[in-house]
Amino acid sequence: MVVEIICVGTEILMGNIVNTNAAFISEKCASLGLSMYYQTVVGDNPNRLKETVFQAINRSDVVIFSGGLGPTQDDLTKETVAEAFGLKLVEDPHSMELLKERFAKFNRPMTENNLKQAFVPENSIVLDNHNGTAPGIIIEGDKSTAILLPGPPNELIPMFTNQVMPYLQKRNNRYFHSAMIKISGTGESAAETMILDLINGQSNPTIATYAKSAEVHIRVTGSGDSAETARDIVVPVVDTICSRFGNEVFSLDEKIELEDAIVSLLKQRNATVSFAESCTGGLLSGRFVNASGASEVYKSGYITYSNEEKIRILGVSEDTLKEYGAVSSQTAEEMAIGCAKVSNADFAVSVTGIAGPNGGTAEKPVGLVYIGCCYKGKCETIELRLTGNRQRIREVSVARALRFLRETILLSTE
Amino acid sequence: MVVEIICVGTEILMGNIVNTNAAFISEKCASLGLSMYYQTVVGDNPNRLKETVFQAINRSDVVIFSGGLGPTQDDLTKETVAEAFGLKLVEDPHSMELLKERFAKFNRPMTENNLKQAFVPENSIVLDNHNGTAPGIIIEGDKSTAILLPGPPNELIPMFTNQVMPYLQKRNNRYFHSAMIKISGTGESAAETMILDLINGQSNPTIATYAKSAEVHIRVTGSGDSAETARDIVVPVVDTICSRFGNEVFSLDEKIELEDAIVSLLKQRNATVSFAESCTGGLLSGRFVNASGASEVYKSGYITYSNEEKIRILGVSEDTLKEYGAVSSQTAEEMAIGCAKVSNADFAVSVTGIAGPNGGTAEKPVGLVYIGCCYKGKCETIELRLTGNRQRIREVSVARALRFLRETILLSTE
Repeated sequence: MVVEIICVGTEILMGNIVNTNAAFISEKCASLGLSMYYQTVVGDNPNRLKETVFQAINRSDVVIFSGGLGPTQDDLTKETVAEAFGLKLVEDPHSMELLKERFAKFNRPMTENNLKQAFVPENSIVLDNHNGTAPGIIIEGDKSTAILLPGPPNELIPMFTNQVMPYLQKRNNRYFHSAMIKISGTGESAAETMILDLINGQSNPTIATYAKSAEVHIRVTGSGDSAETARDIVVPVVDTICSRFGNEVFSLDEKIELEDAIVSLLKQRNATVSFAESCTGGLLSGRFVNASGASEVYKSGYITYSNEEKIRILGVSEDTLKEYGAVSSQTAEEMAIGCAKVSNADFAVSVTGIAGPNGGTAEKPVGLVYIGCCYKGKCETIELRLTGNRQRIREVSVARALRFLRETILLSTE
Repeated sequence: MVVEIICVGTEILMGNIVNTNAAFISEKCASLGLSMYYQTVVGDNPNRLKETVFQAINRSDVVIFSGGLGPTQDDLTKETVAEAFGLKLVEDPHSMELLKERFAKFNRPMTENNLKQAFVPENSIVLDNHNGTAPGIIIEGDKSTAILLPGPPNELIPMFTNQVMPYLQKRNNRYFHSAMIKISGTGESAAETMILDLINGQSNPTIATYAKSAEVHIRVTGSGDSAETARDIVVPVVDTICSRFGNEVFSLDEKIELEDAIVSLLKQRNATVSFAESCTGGLLSGRFVNASGASEVYKSGYITYSNEEKIRILGVSEDTLKEYGAVSSQTAEEMAIGCAKVSNADFAVSVTGIAGPNGGTAEKPVGLVYIGCCYKGKCETIELRLTGNRQRIREVSVARALRFLRETILLSTE
């Protein structure tokens, strides 16, 4: 089944917002094993929108629209698609009721133009919108199906996940099962090499690798004529991949991030962690406490940007700073050891480096970063030589620090 | 002049990456006063790519491509576009030289397939790529112009800014001048109301407002038959807008973020700042030190997630925590005052709140956040009641904390 996406909105064409809806829908469609050949963005212009709709419904089995369902005159998606399918708009009593309830709940007067949102193409399937006023709509035409979704991501995402995905899965006749393997420790090309025989050796399941900062994600998608067949095709391949990467696999759950996995590891060991940051300036702590439940294992964070603060708060020795400089494995080590000590944490991670754009020298260029990780008074350090701008250097440093922390926890004897 | 964008890459269709290139190019084109009616994403499939190219060059004056210029067999953009324009590929000696230099510099052997990148359509304009191996290409056809850019944003962005924008400006015949007014303090709809007469009253310059977390950006774009005319149309409108928003305007420079503006303010006053964070977990410090030069005014940051750490590090009183709780204006106040004291900073900002998804109660719901800002021992606090998920609550808290810090600095007597 071939799906295509049309996002309607001048604000995307003006670069006012990034088209995250298309990325979200695409990823979900890929996980359902659907093919996608085109994504189009078009503005709120009736003629151009009409042309785009006709082109899409003539070449794809399912066309998913986002945006243009609102109450204003600019919102043309529903009217244009209904016209393309030769359908009249009729009032949907259930949607009208929900709409009125919603306005009553928020104590807002409902202006006349809002009523338009409760009109849908005749014989269409209506998708309730629990997070906004415009319902979603599915039109099943002879040749193609159109699925119309509201533009705001907080409305589109739950509607797609809870109502459109089950619909697509059912429509697709074939059943798909998709698993995600998240790996911390091996680069994308090395990871691909390690499973190249699996990737090349079969078309069902398909295996795709995705590179993230300091992580590799591998998606395995299998299809079959029942949910069980699809699952049975995926499971042994996931097992094989997991056995090849061993400890580097930190999650088989799409929703679990590296920081979540680390929080779980620390909880299991009843251990705590603190962070001492220089060049990352708080981003390491900031990402770590993104994990729900982090508060149970997180002791504290110190952002010691200056030498003075490294000495005062973490107890780094003045001699070390003088002799080796603030960006050195020696300073990273003393930062981590001091951080564990003052915060009374079991593990402590330090980051010190040159994020640029200024401050680099021939000997210590921009992108040079040292990470220390301390456990029971013993500290290991790693040296990174990163490329990219200030933001990327800091982001990758954070990701690598988390990876290093996880490795240290795994190696620690309880 | 009508521009359209074609992004080539299966990874976008699979939802593997978000199409930030399209947003970047669109915003820049809007700032040049160019019209854009379509953006398309298409995969590395020769036939579908060819169809998309033909459609675009027949309906738009300039078609900007991103991606598909690399060395692998999948990279088809250049070959396909050249074919659409009826042009042969010829070796570009200068590009070949740059390519060889680049491989030599990084000490990597150059495989045969890389040579393909130094071949360009005959009679095209070659854009040097200082951040990667594939040069950009401009093909000026009779009806339409194609501009081919490499896909990685760190290559595309500088090439577009430094080479493509001046080209488009020149090609466009009309001159455009665009100014950005960045405001911290008024919400988008309130800001729009304040300048509605200006927005409705004229079409040259155009005035567009963009809402960011706790900021509003207003872009004023004027056009004329010379650079001076365009500028003269913009300047008085910018002056009028600035006088309406007064102190809330923190920058007239697109590249200056709120944190940059605050760093400048602090430098002018020879003052320093520290941060004490709870629910934002380091993100406030992390964003602040994004500002180049932050190290000159930044003292330190403390991430005190637990009550224990709020007491130990910041000297918050146990009684306050017991009586009012960790999420209270009283605690925020003591955190900020303690933070200024221990770090010996002139200003200190504290954040404490409930980012969710758990931890909320009827009395103190998820989204309740207190921010304290202290100067010379005196502390003001604000209460926020935010909506959205954990990430959004933390992001908006950071943005509001920066706004509050800026306001406090402006009000402080030197």
